[in-house]
Amino acid sequence: MYNFSLENPVFVAYAIAASLMILKIMGQGWMTVYRMMKISAGYVSPEDLRAGPINKDPRPDQLEINDYVDRSRRMHRNDLENIPAFLVAGLLLVAVGPSLLLAEILFYGFVIVRLLHAIAYATKQSHEVRATFYTIGSAIVVYMAIHVIFVALSRSFD
Amino acid sequence: MYNFSLENPVFVAYAIAASLMILKIMGQGWMTVYRMMKISAGYVSPEDLRAGPINKDPRPDQLEINDYVDRSRRMHRNDLENIPAFLVAGLLLVAVGPSLLLAEILFYGFVIVRLLHAIAYATKQSHEVRATFYTIGSAIVVYMAIHVIFVALSRSFD
Amino acid sequence: MYNFSLENPVFVAYAIAASLMILKIMGQGWMTVYRMMKISAGYVSPEDLRAGPINKDPRPDQLEINDYVDRSRRMHRNDLENIPAFLVAGLLLVAVGPSLLLAEILFYGFVIVRLLHAIAYATKQSHEVRATFYTIGSAIVVYMAIHVIFVALSRSFD
Repeated sequence: MYNFSLENPVFVAYAIAASLMILKIMGQGWMTVYRMMKISAGYVSPEDLRAGPINKDPRPDQLEINDYVDRSRRMHRNDLENIPAFLVAGLLLVAVGPSLLLAEILFYGFVIVRLLHAIAYATKQSHEVRATFYTIGSAIVVYMAIHVIFVALSRSFD
Repeated sequence: MYNFSLENPVFVAYAIAASLMILKIMGQGWMTVYRMMKISAGYVSPEDLRAGPINKDPRPDQLEINDYVDRSRRMHRNDLENIPAFLVAGLLLVAVGPSLLLAEILFYGFVIVRLLHAIAYATKQSHEVRATFYTIGSAIVVYMAIHVIFVALSRSFD
Repeated sequence: MYNFSLENPVFVAYAIAASLMILKIMGQGWMTVYRMMKISAGYVSPEDLRAGPINKDPRPDQLEINDYVDRSRRMHRNDLENIPAFLVAGLLLVAVGPSLLLAEILFYGFVIVRLLHAIAYATKQSHEVRATFYTIGSAIVVYMAIHVIFVALSRSFD
Protein backbone atom coordinates (compact mmCIF):
# COMPACT_ATOMS: atom_id res chain seq x y z
CA MET A 1 0.00 0.00 0.00
CA TYR A 2 1.23 3.50 -0.86
CA ASN A 3 0.51 5.74 2.13
CA PHE A 4 2.10 9.09 1.24
CA SER A 5 -0.55 10.12 -1.22
CA LEU A 6 -3.51 12.47 -1.24
CA GLU A 7 -5.63 9.38 -1.91
CA ASN A 8 -4.96 8.43 1.72
CA PRO A 9 -7.10 10.52 4.12
CA VAL A 10 -4.57 9.96 6.92
CA PHE A 11 -1.90 11.60 4.76
CA VAL A 12 -4.24 14.48 3.91
CA ALA A 13 -4.78 15.10 7.64
CA TYR A 14 -1.03 14.94 8.20
CA ALA A 15 -0.28 17.33 5.32
CA ILE A 16 -2.72 19.92 6.69
CA ALA A 17 -1.56 19.64 10.31
CA ALA A 18 2.13 19.62 9.34
CA SER A 19 1.71 22.66 7.07
CA LEU A 20 -0.07 24.57 9.86
CA MET A 21 2.80 23.78 12.22
CA ILE A 22 5.34 24.88 9.59
CA LEU A 23 3.44 28.18 9.33
CA LYS A 24 3.59 28.41 13.14
CA ILE A 25 7.39 28.08 13.13
CA MET A 26 7.82 30.63 10.35
CA GLY A 27 5.29 33.00 11.91
CA GLN A 28 7.22 32.94 15.18
CA GLY A 29 10.22 34.36 13.33
CA TRP A 30 8.04 37.18 12.07
CA MET A 31 6.70 37.84 15.58
CA THR A 32 10.31 38.35 16.70
CA VAL A 33 10.98 40.70 13.77
CA TYR A 34 7.77 42.64 14.49
CA ARG A 35 8.58 43.04 18.19
CA MET A 36 12.22 43.96 17.50
CA MET A 37 11.23 46.68 15.05
CA LYS A 38 8.27 47.93 17.13
CA ILE A 39 10.38 48.76 20.18
CA SER A 40 13.71 49.08 18.34
CA ALA A 41 15.44 46.78 20.83
CA GLY A 42 16.39 43.16 21.38
CA TYR A 43 18.92 43.00 18.55
CA VAL A 44 21.55 40.27 18.70
CA SER A 45 24.44 41.23 16.40
CA PRO A 46 26.82 44.17 16.87
CA GLU A 47 26.35 45.21 13.23
CA ASP A 48 22.61 45.72 13.91
CA LEU A 49 23.60 48.96 15.64
CA ARG A 50 24.52 50.51 12.29
CA ALA A 51 21.99 53.15 11.27
CA GLY A 52 19.76 52.09 8.39
CA PRO A 53 16.11 51.59 7.39
CA ILE A 54 15.63 48.88 10.07
CA ASN A 55 17.38 50.81 12.83
CA LYS A 56 17.05 54.56 12.28
CA ASP A 57 18.34 55.70 15.67
CA PRO A 58 20.90 53.25 17.08
CA ARG A 59 21.58 53.06 20.83
CA PRO A 60 24.06 50.73 22.57
CA ASP A 61 21.34 49.26 24.82
CA GLN A 62 19.59 47.78 21.78
CA LEU A 63 21.82 44.70 22.15
CA GLU A 64 20.63 44.00 25.70
CA ILE A 65 18.16 41.21 26.33
CA ASN A 66 14.64 42.58 26.23
CA ASP A 67 11.82 40.39 27.56
CA TYR A 68 9.28 41.58 24.97
CA VAL A 69 11.52 40.38 22.13
CA ASP A 70 13.20 37.52 23.97
CA ARG A 71 9.78 36.07 24.82
CA SER A 72 9.20 35.54 21.10
CA ARG A 73 12.64 33.92 20.81
CA ARG A 74 11.82 31.61 23.74
CA MET A 75 8.54 30.67 22.07
CA HIS A 76 10.51 29.94 18.91
CA ARG A 77 12.96 27.74 20.81
CA ASN A 78 10.07 25.88 22.39
CA ASP A 79 8.62 25.34 18.91
CA LEU A 80 11.94 23.97 17.66
CA GLU A 81 12.10 21.59 20.62
CA ASN A 82 8.71 20.14 19.73
CA ILE A 83 7.50 20.76 16.17
CA PRO A 84 10.27 19.18 14.00
CA ALA A 85 9.99 15.98 16.07
CA PHE A 86 6.20 16.07 15.55
CA LEU A 87 6.62 16.57 11.80
CA VAL A 88 8.73 13.43 11.40
CA ALA A 89 6.83 11.36 13.97
CA GLY A 90 3.61 12.22 12.15
CA LEU A 91 5.04 11.17 8.79
CA LEU A 92 6.18 7.87 10.29
CA LEU A 93 2.74 7.35 11.81
CA VAL A 94 1.22 7.79 8.35
CA ALA A 95 3.62 5.11 7.08
CA VAL A 96 2.50 2.51 9.62
CA GLY A 97 -1.17 2.97 8.71
CA PRO A 98 -3.11 4.05 11.83
CA SER A 99 -6.88 4.48 11.89
CA LEU A 100 -8.04 7.81 10.47
CA LEU A 101 -9.77 8.78 13.73
CA LEU A 102 -6.66 8.15 15.85
CA ALA A 103 -4.46 10.04 13.38
CA GLU A 104 -6.78 13.04 13.24
CA ILE A 105 -7.00 13.24 17.04
CA LEU A 106 -3.21 13.14 17.34
CA PHE A 107 -2.44 15.51 14.45
CA TYR A 108 -5.12 18.15 15.10
CA GLY A 109 -4.78 17.72 18.88
CA PHE A 110 -1.10 18.65 18.58
CA VAL A 111 -1.89 21.67 16.40
CA ILE A 112 -4.49 22.92 18.90
CA VAL A 113 -2.36 22.52 22.04
CA ARG A 114 0.64 24.17 20.37
CA LEU A 115 -1.49 27.15 19.39
CA LEU A 116 -2.86 27.33 22.94
CA HIS A 117 0.72 27.06 24.25
CA ALA A 118 1.72 30.02 22.06
CA ILE A 119 -1.22 32.12 23.28
CA ALA A 120 -0.44 31.23 26.91
CA TYR A 121 3.23 32.13 26.43
CA ALA A 122 2.59 35.39 24.57
CA THR A 123 0.05 36.56 27.15
CA LYS A 124 2.25 35.57 30.11
CA GLN A 125 -0.11 33.04 31.64
CA SER A 126 1.16 31.21 34.72
CA HIS A 127 3.74 28.47 34.26
CA GLU A 128 1.11 25.81 35.00
CA VAL A 129 -1.05 26.84 32.01
CA ARG A 130 1.88 26.78 29.58
CA ALA A 131 3.13 23.51 31.09
CA THR A 132 -0.25 21.83 30.60
CA PHE A 133 -0.33 22.51 26.85
CA TYR A 134 3.36 21.62 26.52
CA THR A 135 2.75 18.31 28.28
CA ILE A 136 -0.15 17.29 26.05
CA GLY A 137 1.80 18.13 22.90
CA SER A 138 4.84 16.27 24.13
CA ALA A 139 2.75 13.23 25.09
CA ILE A 140 1.26 13.14 21.59
CA VAL A 141 4.71 13.03 19.95
CA VAL A 142 5.96 10.42 22.44
CA TYR A 143 2.88 8.29 21.79
CA MET A 144 3.36 8.50 18.01
CA ALA A 145 7.02 7.47 18.25
CA ILE A 146 6.22 4.48 20.49
CA HIS A 147 3.32 3.48 18.22
CA VAL A 148 5.69 3.49 15.22
CA ILE A 149 8.35 1.46 17.06
CA PHE A 150 5.80 -1.19 18.06
CA VAL A 151 4.42 -1.60 14.56
CA ALA A 152 7.90 -1.55 12.98
CA LEU A 153 9.27 -4.12 15.45
CA SER A 154 6.28 -6.41 14.92
CA ARG A 155 7.00 -6.27 11.17
CA SER A 156 10.71 -6.90 11.57
CA PHE A 157 9.97 -10.08 13.57
CA ASP A 158 7.36 -11.37 11.11
CA MET B 1 9.89 0.65 -6.38
CA TYR B 2 8.03 1.96 -3.33
CA ASN B 3 10.59 2.46 -0.56
CA PHE B 4 8.66 4.10 2.29
CA SER B 5 6.86 0.96 3.37
CA LEU B 6 7.18 -1.56 6.16
CA GLU B 7 7.76 -4.15 3.40
CA ASN B 8 11.18 -2.52 2.95
CA PRO B 9 13.59 -3.57 5.73
CA VAL B 10 15.64 -0.38 5.19
CA PHE B 11 12.54 1.67 5.97
CA VAL B 12 11.82 -0.45 9.04
CA ALA B 13 15.34 0.24 10.34
CA TYR B 14 14.86 3.94 9.62
CA ALA B 15 11.46 4.06 11.35
CA ILE B 16 12.91 2.48 14.51
CA ALA B 17 16.05 4.65 14.61
CA ALA B 18 14.11 7.84 13.80
CA SER B 19 11.50 7.11 16.48
CA LEU B 20 14.21 6.50 19.07
CA MET B 21 15.81 9.83 18.18
CA ILE B 22 12.41 11.57 18.39
CA LEU B 23 12.01 10.08 21.89
CA LYS B 24 15.50 11.41 22.69
CA ILE B 25 14.50 14.97 21.71
CA MET B 26 11.27 14.83 23.67
CA GLY B 27 12.96 13.18 26.66
CA GLN B 28 15.49 16.00 26.79
CA GLY B 29 12.62 18.44 27.35
CA TRP B 30 11.50 16.32 30.29
CA MET B 31 15.01 16.21 31.71
CA THR B 32 14.96 20.03 31.75
CA VAL B 33 11.54 20.04 33.46
CA TYR B 34 12.73 17.46 36.01
CA ARG B 35 15.90 19.39 36.84
CA MET B 36 14.05 22.74 36.99
CA MET B 37 11.50 21.38 39.44
CA LYS B 38 13.99 19.35 41.49
CA ILE B 39 16.11 22.38 42.40
CA SER B 40 13.40 25.00 41.85
CA ALA B 41 15.71 27.12 39.71
CA GLY B 42 16.70 27.75 36.10
CA TYR B 43 13.38 29.27 35.08
CA VAL B 44 13.35 31.49 31.99
CA SER B 45 10.20 33.64 32.07
CA PRO B 46 9.38 36.39 34.60
CA GLU B 47 5.88 34.95 35.11
CA ASP B 48 7.45 31.69 36.34
CA LEU B 49 8.15 33.53 39.59
CA ARG B 50 4.43 33.56 40.41
CA ALA B 51 3.64 31.16 43.26
CA GLY B 52 1.77 28.06 42.15
CA PRO B 53 1.92 24.24 42.13
CA ILE B 54 5.14 24.27 40.03
CA ASN B 55 6.85 27.02 42.03
CA LYS B 56 5.66 27.00 45.64
CA ASP B 57 8.26 29.37 47.05
CA PRO B 58 9.39 31.93 44.45
CA ARG B 59 12.75 33.68 44.76
CA PRO B 60 14.17 36.28 42.31
CA ASP B 61 17.33 34.22 41.72
CA GLN B 62 15.25 31.46 40.11
CA LEU B 63 15.61 33.32 36.79
CA GLU B 64 19.42 33.19 36.89
CA ILE B 65 21.26 30.71 34.70
CA ASN B 66 21.86 27.50 36.62
CA ASP B 67 24.34 24.97 35.19
CA TYR B 68 22.36 21.94 36.37
CA VAL B 69 19.31 23.06 34.38
CA ASP B 70 21.14 24.88 31.60
CA ARG B 71 23.19 21.73 30.91
CA SER B 72 19.98 19.97 29.90
CA ARG B 73 19.06 22.94 27.67
CA ARG B 74 22.50 22.80 26.04
CA MET B 75 22.06 19.06 25.45
CA HIS B 76 18.69 19.89 23.89
CA ARG B 77 20.23 22.51 21.63
CA ASN B 78 22.89 20.05 20.56
CA ASP B 79 20.13 17.55 19.75
CA LEU B 80 18.32 20.15 17.64
CA GLU B 81 21.53 20.92 15.77
CA ASN B 82 21.93 17.26 14.80
CA ILE B 83 18.80 15.12 15.05
CA PRO B 84 16.32 16.88 12.70
CA ALA B 85 18.99 16.87 9.95
CA PHE B 86 19.54 13.15 10.63
CA LEU B 87 15.79 12.45 10.44
CA VAL B 88 15.47 13.95 6.96
CA ALA B 89 18.83 12.69 5.68
CA GLY B 90 17.83 9.19 6.78
CA LEU B 91 14.51 9.39 4.98
CA LEU B 92 16.27 10.54 1.82
CA LEU B 93 18.75 7.69 2.15
CA VAL B 94 15.83 5.24 2.29
CA ALA B 95 14.52 6.83 -0.92
CA VAL B 96 17.72 6.20 -2.86
CA GLY B 97 17.81 2.52 -1.92
CA PRO B 98 21.04 1.79 -0.06
CA SER B 99 22.06 -1.71 1.03
CA LEU B 100 20.38 -2.85 4.26
CA LEU B 101 23.72 -3.36 6.01
CA LEU B 102 24.99 0.13 5.20
CA ALA B 103 21.68 1.69 6.25
CA GLU B 104 21.59 -0.20 9.56
CA ILE B 105 25.17 0.79 10.38
CA LEU B 106 24.42 4.46 9.67
CA PHE B 107 21.02 4.57 11.39
CA TYR B 108 21.83 2.57 14.51
CA GLY B 109 25.36 3.97 14.64
CA PHE B 110 23.88 7.47 14.85
CA VAL B 111 21.45 6.42 17.60
CA ILE B 112 24.28 4.87 19.65
CA VAL B 113 26.70 7.80 19.39
CA ARG B 114 23.97 10.32 20.21
CA LEU B 115 23.04 8.35 23.33
CA LEU B 116 26.72 8.17 24.29
CA HIS B 117 27.00 11.91 23.63
CA ALA B 118 24.08 12.54 25.98
CA ILE B 119 25.61 10.39 28.72
CA ALA B 120 28.98 12.13 28.30
CA TYR B 121 27.33 15.56 28.46
CA ALA B 122 25.09 14.77 31.44
CA THR B 123 27.98 13.29 33.43
CA LYS B 124 30.35 16.17 32.56
CA GLN B 125 32.96 14.12 30.75
CA SER B 126 35.87 16.03 29.24
CA HIS B 127 35.27 18.00 26.05
CA GLU B 128 37.24 15.42 24.05
CA VAL B 129 34.80 12.59 24.94
CA ARG B 130 31.74 14.61 23.99
CA ALA B 131 33.48 15.86 20.83
CA THR B 132 34.29 12.32 19.70
CA PHE B 133 30.66 11.19 19.80
CA TYR B 134 29.50 14.46 18.23
CA THR B 135 31.99 14.02 15.40
CA ILE B 136 30.91 10.48 14.57
CA GLY B 137 27.23 11.47 14.55
CA SER B 138 27.93 14.50 12.40
CA ALA B 139 30.03 12.45 9.96
CA ILE B 140 27.17 9.96 9.57
CA VAL B 141 24.70 12.71 8.62
CA VAL B 142 27.22 14.33 6.26
CA TYR B 143 27.89 10.97 4.62
CA MET B 144 24.16 10.31 4.14
CA ALA B 145 23.58 13.72 2.54
CA ILE B 146 26.51 13.28 0.14
CA HIS B 147 25.39 9.73 -0.72
CA VAL B 148 21.91 11.06 -1.58
CA ILE B 149 23.30 13.89 -3.72
CA PHE B 150 25.49 11.48 -5.68
CA VAL B 151 22.67 9.05 -6.41
CA ALA B 152 20.21 11.87 -7.21
CA LEU B 153 22.67 13.59 -9.56
CA SER B 154 23.47 10.35 -11.34
CA ARG B 155 19.71 9.91 -11.93
CA SER B 156 19.18 13.45 -13.15
CA PHE B 157 21.93 12.99 -15.78
CA ASP B 158 20.61 9.62 -16.93
CA MET C 1 1.09 8.12 -8.51
CA TYR C 2 4.17 7.43 -6.39
CA ASN C 3 5.94 10.76 -5.90
CA PHE C 4 8.82 9.99 -3.51
CA SER C 5 10.96 8.25 -6.09
CA LEU C 6 14.00 9.10 -8.17
CA GLU C 7 11.79 8.49 -11.22
CA ASN C 8 10.08 11.79 -10.29
CA PRO C 9 12.23 14.79 -11.29
CA VAL C 10 10.52 16.95 -8.65
CA PHE C 11 11.69 14.49 -5.99
CA VAL C 12 15.21 14.50 -7.43
CA ALA C 13 15.30 18.31 -7.18
CA TYR C 14 14.02 18.08 -3.60
CA ALA C 15 16.57 15.41 -2.64
CA ILE C 16 19.45 17.54 -3.93
CA ALA C 17 18.23 20.80 -2.34
CA ALA C 18 17.37 19.11 0.97
CA SER C 19 20.75 17.36 1.13
CA LEU C 20 22.55 20.65 0.48
CA MET C 21 20.59 22.29 3.31
CA ILE C 22 21.41 19.34 5.61
CA LEU C 23 25.09 19.86 4.79
CA LYS C 24 24.59 23.56 5.60
CA ILE C 25 23.23 22.74 9.08
CA MET C 26 26.01 20.25 9.82
CA GLY C 27 28.68 22.56 8.40
CA GLN C 28 27.52 25.34 10.72
CA GLY C 29 28.35 23.11 13.68
CA TRP C 30 31.85 22.67 12.28
CA MET C 31 32.22 26.41 11.78
CA THR C 32 31.51 26.83 15.51
CA VAL C 33 34.06 24.13 16.38
CA TYR C 34 36.65 25.71 14.07
CA ARG C 35 36.16 29.19 15.54
CA MET C 36 36.14 27.89 19.13
CA MET C 37 39.43 26.05 18.64
CA LYS C 38 41.06 28.81 16.57
CA ILE C 39 40.73 31.44 19.27
CA SER C 40 40.44 29.03 22.20
CA ALA C 41 37.34 30.81 23.54
CA GLY C 42 33.56 30.72 23.43
CA TYR C 43 33.21 27.44 25.31
CA VAL C 44 29.86 26.73 26.95
CA SER C 45 30.37 24.04 29.61
CA PRO C 46 32.42 24.37 32.81
CA GLU C 47 34.16 21.04 32.11
CA ASP C 48 35.54 22.50 28.86
CA LEU C 49 38.04 24.38 31.05
CA ARG C 50 39.83 21.11 31.86
CA ALA C 51 43.21 20.96 30.13
CA GLY C 52 43.32 18.48 27.24
CA PRO C 53 44.03 18.17 23.51
CA ILE C 54 41.16 20.56 22.66
CA ASN C 55 42.01 23.13 25.33
CA LYS C 56 45.72 23.11 26.07
CA ASP C 57 45.86 26.27 28.17
CA PRO C 58 42.59 26.85 30.06
CA ARG C 59 41.58 30.33 31.24
CA PRO C 60 38.36 31.23 33.14
CA ASP C 61 37.34 33.79 30.49
CA GLN C 62 36.97 31.01 27.91
CA LEU C 63 33.37 30.57 29.11
CA GLU C 64 32.44 34.17 28.35
CA ILE C 65 30.37 34.95 25.28
CA ASN C 66 32.65 35.73 22.36
CA ASP C 67 31.14 37.34 19.26
CA TYR C 68 33.42 35.46 16.83
CA VAL C 69 32.16 32.10 18.12
CA ASP C 70 28.67 33.21 19.13
CA ARG C 71 28.10 34.56 15.60
CA SER C 72 28.40 31.01 14.30
CA ARG C 73 25.97 29.82 16.99
CA ARG C 74 23.49 32.56 16.01
CA MET C 75 23.83 31.51 12.36
CA HIS C 76 23.14 27.94 13.49
CA ARG C 77 20.05 29.02 15.43
CA ASN C 78 18.82 30.94 12.39
CA ASP C 79 19.31 27.78 10.31
CA LEU C 80 17.31 25.72 12.82
CA GLU C 81 14.50 28.28 12.72
CA ASN C 82 14.23 27.94 8.94
CA ILE C 83 15.76 24.79 7.44
CA PRO C 84 13.89 21.94 9.21
CA ALA C 85 10.58 23.64 8.30
CA PHE C 86 11.80 23.91 4.70
CA LEU C 87 12.81 20.23 4.63
CA VAL C 88 9.32 19.03 5.60
CA ALA C 89 7.45 21.69 3.59
CA GLY C 90 9.47 20.64 0.54
CA LEU C 91 8.66 16.97 1.03
CA LEU C 92 4.96 17.82 1.33
CA LEU C 93 5.18 19.93 -1.81
CA VAL C 94 6.61 16.92 -3.65
CA ALA C 95 3.64 14.89 -2.39
CA VAL C 96 1.04 17.26 -3.85
CA GLY C 97 2.64 17.17 -7.32
CA PRO C 98 3.65 20.72 -8.29
CA SER C 99 5.10 21.58 -11.70
CA LEU C 100 8.82 20.84 -12.00
CA LEU C 101 9.65 24.47 -12.81
CA LEU C 102 7.84 25.84 -9.76
CA ALA C 103 9.43 23.21 -7.51
CA GLU C 104 12.93 23.91 -8.81
CA ILE C 105 12.53 27.67 -8.35
CA LEU C 106 11.32 27.19 -4.77
CA PHE C 107 13.87 24.51 -3.79
CA TYR C 108 16.98 25.99 -5.38
CA GLY C 109 15.83 29.53 -4.61
CA PHE C 110 15.73 28.61 -0.91
CA VAL C 111 19.20 27.03 -1.09
CA ILE C 112 20.65 30.12 -2.75
CA VAL C 113 19.14 32.70 -0.37
CA ARG C 114 20.15 30.67 2.69
CA LEU C 115 23.75 30.50 1.44
CA LEU C 116 23.66 34.26 0.76
CA HIS C 117 22.20 34.78 4.25
CA ALA C 118 25.10 32.80 5.75
CA ILE C 119 27.68 34.82 3.83
CA ALA C 120 25.99 38.09 4.85
CA TYR C 121 25.91 36.99 8.50
CA ALA C 122 29.49 35.69 8.59
CA THR C 123 30.85 38.85 6.97
CA LYS C 124 28.79 41.18 9.22
CA GLN C 125 26.79 42.85 6.46
CA SER C 126 24.18 45.37 7.60
CA HIS C 127 20.95 44.06 9.12
CA GLU C 128 19.04 44.99 5.95
CA VAL C 129 21.12 42.64 3.76
CA ARG C 130 20.67 39.68 6.12
CA ALA C 131 16.98 40.51 6.54
CA THR C 132 16.41 40.51 2.78
CA PHE C 133 17.74 36.96 2.31
CA TYR C 134 15.93 35.78 5.46
CA THR C 135 12.67 37.23 4.15
CA ILE C 136 12.90 35.54 0.75
CA GLY C 137 13.70 32.16 2.35
CA SER C 138 10.87 32.53 4.84
CA ALA C 139 8.43 33.54 2.10
CA ILE C 140 9.35 30.41 0.11
CA VAL C 141 8.58 28.12 3.05
CA VAL C 142 5.34 29.97 3.83
CA TYR C 143 4.29 29.72 0.18
CA MET C 144 5.01 25.96 0.10
CA ALA C 145 2.98 25.33 3.28
CA ILE C 146 0.00 27.32 1.97
CA HIS C 147 0.22 25.59 -1.43
CA VAL C 148 0.11 22.18 0.32
CA ILE C 149 -2.86 23.20 2.52
CA PHE C 150 -4.83 24.37 -0.54
CA VAL C 151 -4.24 21.19 -2.51
CA ALA C 152 -4.88 18.96 0.52
CA LEU C 153 -8.11 20.77 1.42
CA SER C 154 -9.35 20.60 -2.15
CA ARG C 155 -8.79 16.81 -2.03
CA SER C 156 -10.48 16.37 1.33
CA PHE C 157 -13.63 18.08 -0.01
CA ASP C 158 -13.69 16.10 -3.25
